Amino acid sequence: MTICALATAPGGAIGIIRISGPQTLEILSRVFTKNLTNTQPNTIHYGHIISPKLPSSGEEGPGVEANFIDEVLVSVFRAPHSYTGEDSAEISCHGSRYILNKVLALLIENGCRQANPGEFTQRAYLNGKMDLSQAEAVADLIASTNQATHQIAMSQLRGHFSSKLAQLREQLLKLTSLLELELDFSDHEDLEFADRSELLIIANEIDNQVTHLAKSFESGQALKKGIPVAIVGKTNVGKSTLLNALLKDDRAIVSDIHGTTRDTIEDTIDIKGITFRFIDTAGIRQTTDEVEQIGIERTYAAIDKARIVLWMIDKQPLHEDINNIVQRSENKKLIVVKNKVDKEENNSYNLLNIPSVAISAKFGIGIEELEQAIYEAADIPTLTENDIIVTNARHYDALVRAHGSILHVIDGLQMQLSGDLLSEDLRQALDTLAEITGGQITPNEVLGNIFKNFCVGK
Amino acid sequence: MTICALATAPGGAIGIIRISGPQTLEILSRVFTKNLTNTQPNTIHYGHIISPKLPSSGEEGPGVEANFIDEVLVSVFRAPHSYTGEDSAEISCHGSRYILNKVLALLIENGCRQANPGEFTQRAYLNGKMDLSQAEAVADLIASTNQATHQIAMSQLRGHFSSKLAQLREQLLKLTSLLELELDFSDHEDLEFADRSELLIIANEIDNQVTHLAKSFESGQALKKGIPVAIVGKTNVGKSTLLNALLKDDRAIVSDIHGTTRDTIEDTIDIKGITFRFIDTAGIRQTTDEVEQIGIERTYAAIDKARIVLWMIDKQPLHEDINNIVQRSENKKLIVVKNKVDKEENNSYNLLNIPSVAISAKFGIGIEELEQAIYEAADIPTLTENDIIVTNARHYDALVRAHGSILHVIDGLQMQLSGDLLSEDLRQALDTLAEITGGQITPNEVLGNIFKNFCVGK
Repeated sequence: MTICALATAPGGAIGIIRISGPQTLEILSRVFTKNLTNTQPNTIHYGHIISPKLPSSGEEGPGVEANFIDEVLVSVFRAPHSYTGEDSAEISCHGSRYILNKVLALLIENGCRQANPGEFTQRAYLNGKMDLSQAEAVADLIASTNQATHQIAMSQLRGHFSSKLAQLREQLLKLTSLLELELDFSDHEDLEFADRSELLIIANEIDNQVTHLAKSFESGQALKKGIPVAIVGKTNVGKSTLLNALLKDDRAIVSDIHGTTRDTIEDTIDIKGITFRFIDTAGIRQTTDEVEQIGIERTYAAIDKARIVLWMIDKQPLHEDINNIVQRSENKKLIVVKNKVDKEENNSYNLLNIPSVAISAKFGIGIEELEQAIYEAADIPTLTENDIIVTNARHYDALVRAHGSILHVIDGLQMQLSGDLLSEDLRQALDTLAEITGGQITPNEVLGNIFKNFCVGK
Repeated sequence: MTICALATAPGGAIGIIRISGPQTLEILSRVFTKNLTNTQPNTIHYGHIISPKLPSSGEEGPGVEANFIDEVLVSVFRAPHSYTGEDSAEISCHGSRYILNKVLALLIENGCRQANPGEFTQRAYLNGKMDLSQAEAVADLIASTNQATHQIAMSQLRGHFSSKLAQLREQLLKLTSLLELELDFSDHEDLEFADRSELLIIANEIDNQVTHLAKSFESGQALKKGIPVAIVGKTNVGKSTLLNALLKDDRAIVSDIHGTTRDTIEDTIDIKGITFRFIDTAGIRQTTDEVEQIGIERTYAAIDKARIVLWMIDKQPLHEDINNIVQRSENKKLIVVKNKVDKEENNSYNLLNIPSVAISAKFGIGIEELEQAIYEAADIPTLTENDIIVTNARHYDALVRAHGSILHVIDGLQMQLSGDLLSEDLRQALDTLAEITGGQITPNEVLGNIFKNFCVGK
């Protein structure tokens, strides 16, 4: 079935409508001023989208030029050298919703079906253009908002995670064949279990790598969602002034071009490619006269949700307050922010060795040092070319299950179980890792879950 | 100078970055994995956008694959066969704001300048790819929201208005040459002013056409902005139920795909390709318990802003009320909407010959008849292939001034003024009409005003 969808957000100068499937060029030719059925691949064609029916005179309202829907460029791709692996095309229209709707409606009238979310990428996967983890990377790439998430998604799209998994599966297969070899020689009683120490080394090595990948999920999630930061402190200590100082905008070329507003997005800042997300900032900026008692409860609630706590003070805190905050922040990174350094009396505090940064939110003093401290507190390992970060819950789940199967294998090896008793767990580990890239036949429900969160048009 | 801009709204699956200018392919080749400087026109190229600088190790945060910015398709167009008439290209990226920003920043680092609003179309105009009224039609086309505005913009883009203006200018030139001929023969006293009646016919004919175009501006504005409709009536008469019945959504394929919300757009309905805009509908739906007295003032305010007034009743109105509403709606189209026809007692009203439609808002009875009545009340002339509707205030202004000059010519002809006294007005009329298409040299301020309201990227 040939599918079509709008691939751009509506509202720009240009809107792109994407078509893919065996009838792409045939259907297009019915609504385009040129016949495209014998077109060379990767070529662009200028013409008009036309409605084949001339407007009935007056009956359906104004009838001027109703047959010319838009002046467009059509890009033609031919199977198998296209994103989906099928014949496909992109129509570059003027970005009017009316026009885009009209063109989509025309395509549907002429035999296309409206694409489901992610259906183009799903077809790319089904046609072997990419594996499942790469398909998921497409969605991550589109959703990427900072350097870290962009790099992780790009690395995954380019197949680094897939290669790593292939390598792990190879090692598991090696282990399997060594165990089979062991079985073949099991007549010779002396030989059995002779090399178990070597097998154990291989199994442990595989498990270490799987565990390492699984562990990266925590960082991956933090990078994907933004690391939660709480700014706490008494009324009038300067929390909202600090927040505004931190939020000084990056030079964004795209963000506000079309007057789009970032509706309900939380306040975030990027420090060295990592996104930090401020908790409950609406409250910080709106309520400056809240009663102190409520303030304490809110403080605790904010700390509980944070990974990094910025405790803002402008005078020596009470010993009791220090104890309370430190206790509540036990598993968090706590940074004391000493505000109003421009006032001389604020230079010596007794803070029981909690790391602190002296700033003036008002005059912008110490903000860079504070950002550095926040970045270090995030404790995100420096990524190198070869690092793979798991950001996808489905992958994490598979890795954890594979780890479980491999642990069974390790236990079995140590308990001197015979090879055929271990083969089921080995097969399980192999299959579980294969789930990630979709090497095995992937059930429709799984595919449905993966692609339902995609944009339409991708 | 080579310019670049995002041409799509941010937020979709795909984002298109547009580049135009002499250095397009040179700059692109610096950031793309292939050299495009000798590329054939109208071809598409797959590759990666790369940042030529490799990331410094760790200093700048996570460094995985920082050199691969995106996997893209680049469409190449060569001068003069491009939209702008210059060498140009479009990069089809994944629609992440981070990526789009990064690619734009890279292009700017490598020699592009961020385009001003409408600058691509401005270049198309300056390079003779379209005239000024066609350039303006591009913006109108993008902004078109219904069949009528779409058709008017498309007709204008395809040059129908330009042809009409060219034809009027030809008639004016004919008039000019006839007057010159008259002057040449002015030695022969008998011949002078002999054919003035013919010249008057031509001048009047031109003026009729100019006036006809200028008059279409009122319809044009109504079509562009939507025809204002007020729904008035007492509390609980069913106004909000009627509004909801009318607003039953058209089958829109585009609108909500990407979760975009129509923020502050007024409630509108399309009837046979024409948009009707309901006045102050927020009030209608929120306040059902307003005090009657305030209601009357609001009713009057709504009527004053409307072109069509729907007066909703559910019992015989007082004679006094009828008089008040009719008086207030003097220059409007007033339709009485008799709601709750399902109740038997509501079938005979004395309404002093005001047109009325009987409906049940609750049960959806009579809604189509009401829509038909609203459409007819709009009194938009049925557009035919040859109709030209002026929607642009700049065009309207020029037409009104041209009309003034032609009236001077007509007066002069009637007053038997000699041809050389009329030539200044004729020249003025010619120049004024030429302003619309920009045939004369157009001052920079005028161009600035025209293009400043375009999207960036078009």
